[in-house]
Amino acid sequence: MQAGLAMQSIAMLGSQEQKEQWLPRMARVEALGAFALTEPEHGSDSVSLETTARRDGEEWVLDGRKKWIGNGSIADVVVVWARDTGDGQVKGFLVEPPTPGWTAEKMTGKGSLRAVWQAEITLDGVRVPEANRLPGAGSFKDTARVLAGTRNAVAWGALGHATAAYDIAITYAGERTQFGRPLASFQIVQERLVRMLAEVCSMQLYCLRLARLIEQERLTDTIAAIAKMNNTRRAREVLAEARDLLGGNGILLDFHVMRHMADIEALHTYEGTETIQTLIVGRDITGIGAFA
Amino acid sequence: MQAGLAMQSIAMLGSQEQKEQWLPRMARVEALGAFALTEPEHGSDSVSLETTARRDGEEWVLDGRKKWIGNGSIADVVVVWARDTGDGQVKGFLVEPPTPGWTAEKMTGKGSLRAVWQAEITLDGVRVPEANRLPGAGSFKDTARVLAGTRNAVAWGALGHATAAYDIAITYAGERTQFGRPLASFQIVQERLVRMLAEVCSMQLYCLRLARLIEQERLTDTIAAIAKMNNTRRAREVLAEARDLLGGNGILLDFHVMRHMADIEALHTYEGTETIQTLIVGRDITGIGAFA
Amino acid sequence: MQAGLAMQSIAMLGSQEQKEQWLPRMARVEALGAFALTEPEHGSDSVSLETTARRDGEEWVLDGRKKWIGNGSIADVVVVWARDTGDGQVKGFLVEPPTPGWTAEKMTGKGSLRAVWQAEITLDGVRVPEANRLPGAGSFKDTARVLAGTRNAVAWGALGHATAAYDIAITYAGERTQFGRPLASFQIVQERLVRMLAEVCSMQLYCLRLARLIEQERLTDTIAAIAKMNNTRRAREVLAEARDLLGGNGILLDFHVMRHMADIEALHTYEGTETIQTLIVGRDITGIGAFA
Amino acid sequence: MQAGLAMQSIAMLGSQEQKEQWLPRMARVEALGAFALTEPEHGSDSVSLETTARRDGEEWVLDGRKKWIGNGSIADVVVVWARDTGDGQVKGFLVEPPTPGWTAEKMTGKGSLRAVWQAEITLDGVRVPEANRLPGAGSFKDTARVLAGTRNAVAWGALGHATAAYDIAITYAGERTQFGRPLASFQIVQERLVRMLAEVCSMQLYCLRLARLIEQERLTDTIAAIAKMNNTRRAREVLAEARDLLGGNGILLDFHVMRHMADIEALHTYEGTETIQTLIVGRDITGIGAFA
Repeated sequence: MQAGLAMQSIAMLGSQEQKEQWLPRMARVEALGAFALTEPEHGSDSVSLETTARRDGEEWVLDGRKKWIGNGSIADVVVVWARDTGDGQVKGFLVEPPTPGWTAEKMTGKGSLRAVWQAEITLDGVRVPEANRLPGAGSFKDTARVLAGTRNAVAWGALGHATAAYDIAITYAGERTQFGRPLASFQIVQERLVRMLAEVCSMQLYCLRLARLIEQERLTDTIAAIAKMNNTRRAREVLAEARDLLGGNGILLDFHVMRHMADIEALHTYEGTETIQTLIVGRDITGIGAFA
Repeated sequence: MQAGLAMQSIAMLGSQEQKEQWLPRMARVEALGAFALTEPEHGSDSVSLETTARRDGEEWVLDGRKKWIGNGSIADVVVVWARDTGDGQVKGFLVEPPTPGWTAEKMTGKGSLRAVWQAEITLDGVRVPEANRLPGAGSFKDTARVLAGTRNAVAWGALGHATAAYDIAITYAGERTQFGRPLASFQIVQERLVRMLAEVCSMQLYCLRLARLIEQERLTDTIAAIAKMNNTRRAREVLAEARDLLGGNGILLDFHVMRHMADIEALHTYEGTETIQTLIVGRDITGIGAFA
Repeated sequence: MQAGLAMQSIAMLGSQEQKEQWLPRMARVEALGAFALTEPEHGSDSVSLETTARRDGEEWVLDGRKKWIGNGSIADVVVVWARDTGDGQVKGFLVEPPTPGWTAEKMTGKGSLRAVWQAEITLDGVRVPEANRLPGAGSFKDTARVLAGTRNAVAWGALGHATAAYDIAITYAGERTQFGRPLASFQIVQERLVRMLAEVCSMQLYCLRLARLIEQERLTDTIAAIAKMNNTRRAREVLAEARDLLGGNGILLDFHVMRHMADIEALHTYEGTETIQTLIVGRDITGIGAFA
Repeated sequence: MQAGLAMQSIAMLGSQEQKEQWLPRMARVEALGAFALTEPEHGSDSVSLETTARRDGEEWVLDGRKKWIGNGSIADVVVVWARDTGDGQVKGFLVEPPTPGWTAEKMTGKGSLRAVWQAEITLDGVRVPEANRLPGAGSFKDTARVLAGTRNAVAWGALGHATAAYDIAITYAGERTQFGRPLASFQIVQERLVRMLAEVCSMQLYCLRLARLIEQERLTDTIAAIAKMNNTRRAREVLAEARDLLGGNGILLDFHVMRHMADIEALHTYEGTETIQTLIVGRDITGIGAFA
């Protein structure tokens, strides 16, 4: 997600020079990107971010703190979102670490997506040239557009975790015998598998629809939010079923389900918690924002 | 469903003469059909039906009992499924009431789909000519093929009930005020609406997929069964949410939700209970039948 | 519930004369009571009720409308809640129909608790003597105290519906055969029964605890609200399982489950919807009211 | 659990000498016990265990493999269950490692209850004196009696995890602000907390009931199984809600919820999976065993 968000920010909001400088190298994974929006005190309400950007001649001076920034400690370029002290709008800046005033510390003690390094970042008078500002990012609405695109990716990610769990479970049920018969021959086990399959299919159908809408350039925030919310929620259920079906073996990392179960928790929350997705959709269908 | 099943039986398994005699008139609703498969002791295991058909020269003699037969007391033609005492196979016969030995009594005390009249039928030596046997129905597999097609229709029916409930709920939430504000402005109400919408969308996506597969002549029993099971199950949830959201008004027939809630129960069960759908799908994905 | 609420209002808030006049006769069902709080526009926010009581010498003049009043069209005495135009507080009055200005019309088209007659009531200058005011009812808090007591009764009522459904289901599973075996012998059926039983037990345990707390005079609104919410919610689940287990027979009134399923809907909503119970408990555990 | 099961085995089934030798030291944690029942191929059907015990004069010779044995690699005494090759019955033996033929290897790659060391054990001609046989263990029924007692402990353990999660969640909701207000002030957050509380209460009530039944010596296997199944299932739900409520912080071990979420998976499965508990209860309520 993390590299993807940085690329999408540059692709959607960057200047021609920024695109040429970064996108080809990022696509070849010669350069690594990061996306720094979330702050210690602003997760779901990232719109209220407190990091500031002050114009100083041909440069901007960035001050503040970021948290949960995937690749934040190892990226070649970080898209940092900060509030312009001049007009109060949220703007995007390309920071290229290491640079004076920039500190990034890898977060430890994560119980989900342990393969992704996330960082807490402190910006203490970090200077970037005006040329590193994303010209397409004039307000938080532009940030939100980047996020909407990524919810599609999270819906697919959740489908991936759930599909893996279903595959593991049905294979295990065919191979493991108890009471002298394969698990797959028991009604109570078949019921569990069928419940899982019905959910996996519904997630696939959501993803298929997202893809068709993207092709037709008709994907809206609301639909991406429903799909993200539905799929991570259903994936949690499928994973819990699979974990259960595998019995004791289900807690061993060798059987993979436990890892998927841990990882889905991050997906369920990032790029918008279940609650925030609900309120985004709720605002659209009722015409009334109920965030605060 | 009932008229549809009779038409599909004739269309899929009937002779050219049977098709010409019945289908055009049925399509114009000048003739009404019924489909008599279920028996008092054989619902989910209709494969075990006990009604018999005995060949007697150019006629067949039918004996047995049927139950739950929609339109059974008013139909012009009833597709009766009976076991040939000769070869033990299940065959289909077109019975045209009134006819000697045929009694059909409307069932009373239904709490669901009250608009549909269902009958208990007794066949006591009912005679039909060989020309009224469906030539395409050589065994229960042919009966099952007719049923599979109808599960698609039930999935759509469940979507209809759920969509109606969602529409009623969101309209009500916009109009009804409590504590001086429309219900739709409360977080807790929006959450309920969004949960409903996510389910309605998943049901729509299942139906859309069924339609595409039918177009491509690729719909299988298994997929129809998953869709039927998923959609009637989800519709139940959506209807319960809507009923709740409407508060006291939700139990008044004028607000319609309560009627949808009652009616979905029949859909959830007919053309295959949740349990039977589960075991049909389970057999396909595991390769092992666990029915008995 | 309806007669009970009237009796509890008089028992908790009435004068000695009012108690002597009504309670013994009501206990012998020689007099029937009703409790008139809900209004057409004020269900969950009954605290905002608009019916007025204006003091006029030794009498009070009542004006307004009530809805959903159980026994409202047949009661000998109705506890009417109205806002004193003098001090703005909600007070309780004993109205004895028929009386000038009082109209009560039985509501029709109910899909739940059809055995209870509920009325819409219009009060157009109804006069009651000061002696008919409940002296213990000085504000809405007193009304709320009466309601809290009744939530205990609803929790028990929900348990009754669920227990009935469990009994019906397990009996049916033992008697009905499919595929040559009793339903009760199938894993998938046992699983359904066990899920139901676990819920019924949890409802019993809530009720047992309510009884113990009442004995010790320690029952609080919050606990009554959790129990009511939990039990009506779980009863809905148990009833849906039972309906499903009975297959087609589950929709016939003769098998009773469908009626219980319809009736639980009223219990789930009256004396406080799921949403209102949630917010009552939420206020207590967080210290913050989030009603509006 | 592990030490507890060994102590209970000795207390319930041991000789006076065995009790005196082990129980006081185990109670002071001067000696550590383990309970070796599960085998690589026999989890839910541990009744089919394949480890053998062959009588050889005043000794027994044990051969076979065990898996998932908590403390198995560090215990001073291990209760090993094996099938007597003489009479085919399952008996219990006290093995005191290290001893020839005994190998215990700590299992790695666990994603749940990582604080407990579990071992895979190989018994290759391990010899124990007749005095180390548990005289009270004459068949698998005796083993099952020990297990039943422990399901009570698992129900309490699940309550502990859920209570911790609720406490963490409500504290966090009071301290964390978003959109300028504490989370606890949002309806959608209160709803989550109240759902959690209703479950925690139902789990407490189950545990309270278990304790009362134990006091009265009336606890049955069936009730212990329902309680175990209900509480671990509900604890999973409460933990998922808490994880969600904490947003990104919910995946950090410092906030503890993620660890509880991982650990409940072992509890949900050990001493009998959800499926096995279901079938134990199902057999009791229907009178028909549906295990195989």
